[in-house]
This record gives sequence, structure tokens and C-alpha cells, in this order.
Amino acid sequence: MSLSSSLLENAVDQLATLPGIGRRTAMRLALDLLRRDPQEVARFSEAIRRMRDDVRFCDVCCNISDEPRCAICRDGNREASLICVVEDIRDVIAIENTRQFKGLYHVLGGVISPMDGIGPEDLNTRQLMDRVQAGGIDEVILALGTTLEGDTTGFYLNRKLNEAHVRVTMLARGLSVGGDLDQADELTLGRSIADRKPYEQLARR
Amino acid sequence: MSLSSSLLENAVDQLATLPGIGRRTAMRLALDLLRRDPQEVARFSEAIRRMRDDVRFCDVCCNISDEPRCAICRDGNREASLICVVEDIRDVIAIENTRQFKGLYHVLGGVISPMDGIGPEDLNTRQLMDRVQAGGIDEVILALGTTLEGDTTGFYLNRKLNEAHVRVTMLARGLSVGGDLDQADELTLGRSIADRKPYEQLARR
Repeated sequence: MSLSSSLLENAVDQLATLPGIGRRTAMRLALDLLRRDPQEVARFSEAIRRMRDDVRFCDVCCNISDEPRCAICRDGNREASLICVVEDIRDVIAIENTRQFKGLYHVLGGVISPMDGIGPEDLNTRQLMDRVQAGGIDEVILALGTTLEGDTTGFYLNRKLNEAHVRVTMLARGLSVGGDLDQADELTLGRSIADRKPYEQLARR
Repeated sequence: MSLSSSLLENAVDQLATLPGIGRRTAMRLALDLLRRDPQEVARFSEAIRRMRDDVRFCDVCCNISDEPRCAICRDGNREASLICVVEDIRDVIAIENTRQFKGLYHVLGGVISPMDGIGPEDLNTRQLMDRVQAGGIDEVILALGTTLEGDTTGFYLNRKLNEAHVRVTMLARGLSVGGDLDQADELTLGRSIADRKPYEQLARR
């Protein structure tokens, strides 16, 4: 695809670097932007540049924040002895939306993925160990995705956290709420049998 | 979804204005941009702003161009008496890729869509009529999408162009090449029967 404008070509190339955006979609996005008011596009472009230049991460939990400490870490009503370790800020939002968790978070900023050349030192693991070693932490919940990378990261963190003598837990795996048995995949169904619980503990919630 | 950073929130809001990008996808794109080098994001943001600020349209055919006349209109080897009318620059690229067309283009910049409040005066129709009235045009091909809006636009342009006494043609409709009969929809199949052609004209190409 050779375009009649190098300015458009350049914008399409840049948009196509976004994950999940191919060149055809990038072209559609560029044409949409071209149809807009220049001021509107300037605001669009500026919002992205400012986010990258000015955003900072919470000094404590590495969550995204406009201030040195994020709103969750500043909230005195939350249980400071309980840390939930997540991959990225989307997971913080997902867990916050459940309204089930009142502790603090630790955002790793990714998962260990040798295929992509991401090791523990590329993640915020040191900051997590510093928090645990500073004391006052009773439990660390590993709330990682159930992928190979999530499992690898969990395995690594569990070993490190055990050395620091802190209780490590992970999210339960089993049937989705509202799901039928024949819709669950074999691994999940097998896991839900192996991890079955006394009826009284689960059914009444 | 309330985010811990208004900078991120703002960027996600802006990305979610793009067509086909919901807030979840916008969040994924924003997080990807956040992980990049600030210079890289500055280039990304600048490419979009510059495209909107500096891009211009060909004075003749309204195609996107970095110069007053686009490369196709400047090319002396093309048939200047044949104009292919298309909705947008993506269609120019699609037709150029066929290598079947050696005439010039006219980019409307959209199609007539009363639902979206887009009338003929919002498109580059006046420029098309100016080109035709300036003389030297033998044929105008309406290469518009086979949608209600495409048909409406074709109907309008055909009437205007007939007034200017120029031959108006449109793209053939029929079976896709490589498609089976039972895969074609009823309208297309019906059309391909009504528009059937002598065997000699079609089969040997």
C-alpha cells in the first residue's frame, strides 16, 4: 500500500504500531482523524503525549497516579497489611469494580515472559520485595492471569516471598459463576473437582 | 471505570473517540503507549498532529497529497478523459492495486447520508462538476459502495452528470471471482442473472 501523501503514510505507520491495529484499521483511524477539526486532533495528540511525559507511578504500589502516592495507597481505610499483586492497572480496575477487596495493590507492570525477553528485573518485583521486607505485611495475594506467563510469574514470586516469610495466596480457579458445566473447558472443570470445597463454605454466598 | 490518573483518563477518553475503539481497547492502547519510550510516543503524537495540520488535498481530484496536485493527476501517462469517482482515498488505493485503471480519480470525501446529515454540498461534488464542465471528459465511472448511501450518491451524481452530457457508467455487480453460487446472497445472485452477458465476453478473460 503506497499512499499519495507521506504525512498520511507516516501517521498510518505510527497508528499501525498499536497492538491489534493492522494497516487497514490504521488507515481507517487516520481517515477519521483527517475528517476532524484540527484543534480536536491537536487535543487528541496532546493528550497522548502528555500522558506519556507527565504520568507518574505511585512510589508505593507502582499504580499509575498523578501524585507521588496513588489514591488507594493514601486511603487510610484500607488494610495496609494485605497486598494484591496484579499485572497491570486494568487488573486494579477490575478488582476495584468487584468491591470485594479492601487491601492495597502492587502493580508489576507485566508478567515474566522469556519469549518476549521480559524477566523479573523488568517488572516492579524489587519494589514488592522492599515493601514486604519493610514489614507489616500479613498476606500477599497473587492475582495473576491463568496463562503460562502468569503461572511462571506466580511461581517466581511465591519462591521469593516465601524466603521473606510472608503468607502467599492466589485467586481461586474453578467454574465461572453463571456458567454451565459443559461450557467449562476440561482444565478448569478438572481443577474445580480437585479444589472442591465443603458445601456450606460455598453455596450460601 | 474511574482511573487513578486524570492524564491516563484523558488519553483513554481521546483514544475511545476513534471508530471501532471502545473504552477497554482504548485502555489497552494507552497502556501500550505508556510502556514505550517518551521520544517514541512524542513521534507518534506528532505524526498524527502533523498529518491533520499539514496534509492537503489535490486541487484537481481532492485526493490526499503533500503537493498542490497529487502524483496521479501529475502523471502524463494516464487517460485524462476518464474519471473514476470514489468515496475516499482507501478506494483509490484498492483500485490502483488492481492495475486495471489508467484514468484519473475524483475523491468525494464521503457519500450522501441523510441519517448522518451529510448532503451533496458536504462532499467534493462541485469540484467534480467543475472538472466535467471544463470539458475533455468522455466518461465518469461511479465506483461507489453497494450500500444505500452509495446508491443514493450514485443516483444524485448520475442526474447531475447527465445534465452535463457526459457518459456515466458504474462498476459491474455480480458474483465474486472465486465464489460459489450458494455463497452469494440473493440480491447479488439475482443481479448477476439479470445482468448476464454473452459467454464470449466474460469467460475468456
